[in-house]
Amino acid sequence: MATNYKQPEHKLTMIPGPIEFSDSVLGAMATPSQAHTSPEFVQTFQTVLQNLRKVFKSTDKDAQGYVVAGSGTLGWDVAGANLINKGDKVLVLSTGFFSDSFAEALKVYEADVDVVTAPVGDVVPFDQIEQQLKKEKYTAITITHVDTSTAVVSDVAKISEIVKKVSPETLIIVDGVCSIGVENIEFDKWGVDFALTASQKALGVPAGLSVFFASSRAVNKALNKEKPAAFFASLKKWTPIMKAYEGGSAAYFATPAIQTITALKVSLDEILGQTLDGRYAKHEETSTKFKKEIEALGMKLVPVNHSVAAHGLTAAYFPEGVSGPDFLGKLASKGFTVAGGIHKALVGKYFRVGHMGFSVYEGHVDRLLAAIKETLKELK
Amino acid sequence: MATNYKQPEHKLTMIPGPIEFSDSVLGAMATPSQAHTSPEFVQTFQTVLQNLRKVFKSTDKDAQGYVVAGSGTLGWDVAGANLINKGDKVLVLSTGFFSDSFAEALKVYEADVDVVTAPVGDVVPFDQIEQQLKKEKYTAITITHVDTSTAVVSDVAKISEIVKKVSPETLIIVDGVCSIGVENIEFDKWGVDFALTASQKALGVPAGLSVFFASSRAVNKALNKEKPAAFFASLKKWTPIMKAYEGGSAAYFATPAIQTITALKVSLDEILGQTLDGRYAKHEETSTKFKKEIEALGMKLVPVNHSVAAHGLTAAYFPEGVSGPDFLGKLASKGFTVAGGIHKALVGKYFRVGHMGFSVYEGHVDRLLAAIKETLKELK
Repeated sequence: MATNYKQPEHKLTMIPGPIEFSDSVLGAMATPSQAHTSPEFVQTFQTVLQNLRKVFKSTDKDAQGYVVAGSGTLGWDVAGANLINKGDKVLVLSTGFFSDSFAEALKVYEADVDVVTAPVGDVVPFDQIEQQLKKEKYTAITITHVDTSTAVVSDVAKISEIVKKVSPETLIIVDGVCSIGVENIEFDKWGVDFALTASQKALGVPAGLSVFFASSRAVNKALNKEKPAAFFASLKKWTPIMKAYEGGSAAYFATPAIQTITALKVSLDEILGQTLDGRYAKHEETSTKFKKEIEALGMKLVPVNHSVAAHGLTAAYFPEGVSGPDFLGKLASKGFTVAGGIHKALVGKYFRVGHMGFSVYEGHVDRLLAAIKETLKELK
Repeated sequence: MATNYKQPEHKLTMIPGPIEFSDSVLGAMATPSQAHTSPEFVQTFQTVLQNLRKVFKSTDKDAQGYVVAGSGTLGWDVAGANLINKGDKVLVLSTGFFSDSFAEALKVYEADVDVVTAPVGDVVPFDQIEQQLKKEKYTAITITHVDTSTAVVSDVAKISEIVKKVSPETLIIVDGVCSIGVENIEFDKWGVDFALTASQKALGVPAGLSVFFASSRAVNKALNKEKPAAFFASLKKWTPIMKAYEGGSAAYFATPAIQTITALKVSLDEILGQTLDGRYAKHEETSTKFKKEIEALGMKLVPVNHSVAAHGLTAAYFPEGVSGPDFLGKLASKGFTVAGGIHKALVGKYFRVGHMGFSVYEGHVDRLLAAIKETLKELK
């Protein structure tokens, strides 16, 4: 591994993923070649898989973590190809663009999808979820923990409680792409069955890894499925591989992304170097402070109120009279990459700032805030 | 990008992928974070996609290169999910483990697969291919250019000629995982429709990228398919994304593996820094010399003769009286990782050495040969 690597000065990437990476994570990306079956890599991957259990707060030995070369999107295929059979009813709770895309992915796997859509910037009301679950028998429900398009966070604990009460057989599938590593998730306690994320978000690692976690119920369902609907995304293929590596021996289905997995090991070590709850509190504090400052500058948040606003990113409308491209361009010239909006109904009207991981601990958020203040002065 | 990065001394990975990587490629893996939509990354990805055309020797503007986070295996899903319809006949030419796995992947996408299997260490005879193509109407034929399990290279030019003569409608699909970048491939001239590889082989980049190239005929078929059988592996989704990046603008379907793609840019620059034919000649020369030395040491090659032996790797039986684990263990203690065999019929009886890219230019192959000689002396 490349130790003591120091990244050069560069424009700070403060979008809701890819986020900024620590020097040690980037150094690990430059790890010299190792065979996927080498003792060195087996040990790395074993530690990653063991530590994933901690990130998901799971102690159930029959649950399983997975790390596969791909992106967050691939996690949708894994859910669709392994947990759903043709014609199965799935309830999708939509809080934005990514929830809708998840629905589209599930339809490719011939799920019969009902989408319940929240008003823009809000969550789906609990009583609506409960009514819908009473009306129909759903094989699975999907919850987009944080929809990166709106920065809305859903209450997975509460929704899971409703599912357990009304329809305990329904699998609970959580898209945690913009939440895992920054919002609390208690996989076992809440009874989640499948949660997916990607490396370049709050896990703090360059893009290229699809990371997911399955309950024993989900693993069993996948292993007993007569024929998974995909090859690369097959849990029948990947489950023995992950069990082997986690147990300390190599196994082969497709070549793992060795350098990126090594970087994930470094990042998980960093994440677990403090308590998860401490990490979540730090993110919440930074997020709340940043949001209040943004509001004080006269900008309105996309989430309808702070209680449904995510802690890893902020989505806010451009101030009145300020052009979006000018605002983003000025920030870029000051050394910050911030994202435009992608929600169909609001595109061009708002921007998104990622504040996860390294940037939260390195003071990047305060530096960005100062740049936003300067920008507004210059543009008004 | 991290310039002047120098990798530390380490055990040399001389398996048929992942291979050893150059210092500049590894340095690029540590590139500080960039947004997937940033001008910096757009330019990187544009160059990669343009250069891929050169690697495939393709000038057809309607053909398209693709780079997606994943592994070589994902390329099989792309072929199955986009180019095959349920019940389509596919002819698989099998020269080993990977050819058979490709057949398995296609069956997941409900292809009706006929496998014609070559004798171990040999290729499928041309007349047998011709007869089979005359007997049945095939939607596609798959050729594993080099089967990494046997180190056998198939004559894609000649087989394509037969297909064009007997059954020109049949799509020609080439698994080039262990060939592209080391064996000559003339995508347009030979009339190949789809060729796939992965980053960690002769392209000389850490694992994590699925790289493939589709003819205009294949692209059209995929775009007109009513419903691709996968979401993440959908060419309907990826084609506009690749066209956008190659044209110099960003587009989003799933987050690209920015650092690994940046490393691919560096590696393609290195590869195209000499003529491709010069590169192939260098690999052939190194390979032939290595194989003759191995034979002179009393070891028999797995390929039945040099004309069917691939140039990026060597598969040879352990010498009589020498235990495989002892042989591999000794080499490891001398600083070389070499692979065991994975062909079902021969497992435990042979080993495989990768000699692609960086190792060929850095003298690693000679160093390994010296270590093999020492090892044999010590074990006999």
